[in-house]
Amino acid sequence: MLAAKYVGDRTIRIDQEDAPPLAPGEVRIDVAYAGICGTDLHIFHGAMDSRVTRPATIGHEMSGIISAIAEDVTGWAIGDAVTVMPLDWDGTCPACLAGNQHICQNLDFIGIDSPGALQQQWNVPAGVLVAVPDGVRLDHAALVEPVAVAVHDVRRSELKAGDRAVVIGAGPIGVLIASVAAAAGAEVVVIELDPSRRAAAEALGLRTLDPRTADQVEWVNEWTAGAGADVVFEVSGSAAAVLVATSLAKVRGTLVVVAIHSEPRPIDLHRVFWRELRILGARVYERRDFEKAVSLVAEGAIPADALITSIVPLSEVGAAFETLEGGKAMKILVDVAGVGE
Amino acid sequence: MLAAKYVGDRTIRIDQEDAPPLAPGEVRIDVAYAGICGTDLHIFHGAMDSRVTRPATIGHEMSGIISAIAEDVTGWAIGDAVTVMPLDWDGTCPACLAGNQHICQNLDFIGIDSPGALQQQWNVPAGVLVAVPDGVRLDHAALVEPVAVAVHDVRRSELKAGDRAVVIGAGPIGVLIASVAAAAGAEVVVIELDPSRRAAAEALGLRTLDPRTADQVEWVNEWTAGAGADVVFEVSGSAAAVLVATSLAKVRGTLVVVAIHSEPRPIDLHRVFWRELRILGARVYERRDFEKAVSLVAEGAIPADALITSIVPLSEVGAAFETLEGGKAMKILVDVAGVGE
Ligand SMILES: [Zn+2]
Ligand SMILES: [Zn+2]
Repeated sequence: MLAAKYVGDRTIRIDQEDAPPLAPGEVRIDVAYAGICGTDLHIFHGAMDSRVTRPATIGHEMSGIISAIAEDVTGWAIGDAVTVMPLDWDGTCPACLAGNQHICQNLDFIGIDSPGALQQQWNVPAGVLVAVPDGVRLDHAALVEPVAVAVHDVRRSELKAGDRAVVIGAGPIGVLIASVAAAAGAEVVVIELDPSRRAAAEALGLRTLDPRTADQVEWVNEWTAGAGADVVFEVSGSAAAVLVATSLAKVRGTLVVVAIHSEPRPIDLHRVFWRELRILGARVYERRDFEKAVSLVAEGAIPADALITSIVPLSEVGAAFETLEGGKAMKILVDVAGVGE
Repeated sequence: MLAAKYVGDRTIRIDQEDAPPLAPGEVRIDVAYAGICGTDLHIFHGAMDSRVTRPATIGHEMSGIISAIAEDVTGWAIGDAVTVMPLDWDGTCPACLAGNQHICQNLDFIGIDSPGALQQQWNVPAGVLVAVPDGVRLDHAALVEPVAVAVHDVRRSELKAGDRAVVIGAGPIGVLIASVAAAAGAEVVVIELDPSRRAAAEALGLRTLDPRTADQVEWVNEWTAGAGADVVFEVSGSAAAVLVATSLAKVRGTLVVVAIHSEPRPIDLHRVFWRELRILGARVYERRDFEKAVSLVAEGAIPADALITSIVPLSEVGAAFETLEGGKAMKILVDVAGVGE
C-alpha cells in the first residue's frame, strides 16, 4: 500500500510499504478520502515537530470501508462504511475519571500523536469507529470530523433556536460553526477580514460582515436591538478579535474560544465582569457530537459539495498543502484509494 | 441630621442638613452603621469623578432602623431592623427583560449613582429593603452587603461541597468568598502576596499561600492530586494573577472574575481551550444572595467580629478612608447614629 509521510522540512514523501499486521481489538480500514486541516498544515510547517515523531503518517479527517477485523472485535462487518473519532484517552487521569475523556490529560490524538489516515490501509482500535449510514457519499463522510468540532462548539455554547450568534473567522471551522448554528435555528453573522473567505462564506448562504467597513460593536448592537449577541464564537485566532469579542456579547452572553491562541491575549475582563459574561474553551468533540455530525451530513444540513474545493490523488498531497497555505481553498480532500492501485 | 459628603479632591465634608421629605414608595432609615468598601475608596481617590455627582453622600454597606414609612408602603413597620440591597434597575432594558435586573444595562447603584448611607436619615425605595432578623447585631448586619457579593460569586461558580477552591487576593471580598466557600463545604486556599493580609486571613481560620515562596501551580497540582482546582476566584485585580489563574484550574474548571481590571489583561486562551475552562464574570448580587447573606451572618458562619477592624464615629470618616488606603484594615464601620445627636 501507499502511505503519505511527513518527514520534516515541509516535505511529504509517498512510501510503498506493507500494511502493518492487525493487532487484537483493531479493525483495518481501506481509506477512501482524507481531508487536510489546519492542524495538518501546522505539522507540515514544522510548528509541531516537537510533538510529531517523523516520519509521520498524519491525517485524521477521513472516510473508508472496513477490510479486515481482528478476531476479538464484534459489532462490525467487512464492507461497512465508517469514519473515525481520532481520540485515544488513558481512562485513568482526573479528567477521564470526571467523565471528560475527550480532553484526557494524556490524550493521544490519532493522526498527530500516532499514525493517521493518509495511508491506503489504516489499522485503528475498533472503539474509535463511527458508522456512516447507507446513502452518505464517502467524500461527504470525510467532513464528519470537522463538522463534529463545530457541533461540539455549538453544543457547548448552549445556543438556542432564535438566538443571535456571531462567528469571528470564516475559515473551514468558522463556516461549519455558522452552518451548524443556523441548522439549530440561530441567526448568524460571520465576521471576516479576508474578501475571498467572505465570498466563500456568502456562497454557502452565510451572512458576513467586513470589520473594516462596519463598526462591529455598533452593527451587532443594532442587529440585536441594543442587547448584544447571545453567543460569540472566536475562531480567528487573532488578538484583535479577542479584544472586540467581549463587546459583542449581551449581558450573561457566551464567548466560545475555538481558535488556537499561541500566546496570551489581552482581554477586556472589566467587560466580562460588568456584563457577567461566560467564556468557554471548546476542544475536539465527544461521541455524541460525532453522531450528531453524521446526522447533519446525512441530512444535507451541511453544504458539503460547496465546502469541498477539490479532491486530489494521494500523490499530490504535498501540492495540496501548498494550495491550502495560500488560503485559497476551503477544504481539500485526498483521494487515498484512487492512487497506486 | 449629619451627612458625610465626598466633595472631590480626597475630601469628605460633614454637613448639617434637614432630612429630605419622604416621597411616595419610600421608607426612612435611621442609619446605624455603614461600612467603607473598595469602591468608596476609589470614589475618595477621585477615580470615579466622571460618574459621581458631587457633593455626594456615598456608602452602600449599612444597617439601620426604620423611622418613617410613606403612606403607600406596606409590609414594613417603624422600628424594623433592615439593611439595603442598593440596586435600582430600569426594568425595561434587554438585561432586565431577560431576568438579569441586578446587572441592568442602566443600573443605578445607590450610594454611587444616587445618595447613599453615610447620613443619619436615609430615604430609600421600599423595594430595596432587606429584613434583619431579631438577634442579629446591627454592626454585623452592616456586613451583609459584602457577604452578598461573596455569596453571589460562590453561587455563580457552582462550587459544591468537597470541591477545592483557590481564592487569589485576601482583601475583604477575597476572605469573604473564602469564608462562604468554606461554609459551603469546600476546601479553600487563599493566595496573597502581602504578609499582613495573609496574617489577617489566617486569623480568620483560612489557609493561605505565599506565591513568592511556593510555586502556585505545583502546589495546587499536588493539593488536588494532579487535577487542578475546581474553582479559582480572581479577586486581586492583578495582571500576574490572571496569567497564572488559568493554570490553577482543572479540566472543565471554573475561573470567576470578581476583581475590577481597569485595562485589558493578557490571558492564556490556549489553556482555556486546552482544558475547556469556563470563565465567569460575577458582579453584585441578586435578592436571593442577599437573603442567603443575612442567614450566614445570623448563623455566625461569617467571622464578623474578626472582620470588623474598628468602628469610628461619623466625624472621622475622612481619617477612616486614609487608614483603609494604607491597607492595614479589613473592614472599618462608621457609627453613623452615634455622632452629633
Ligand atoms: Zn485521561
Ligand atoms: Zn435594565
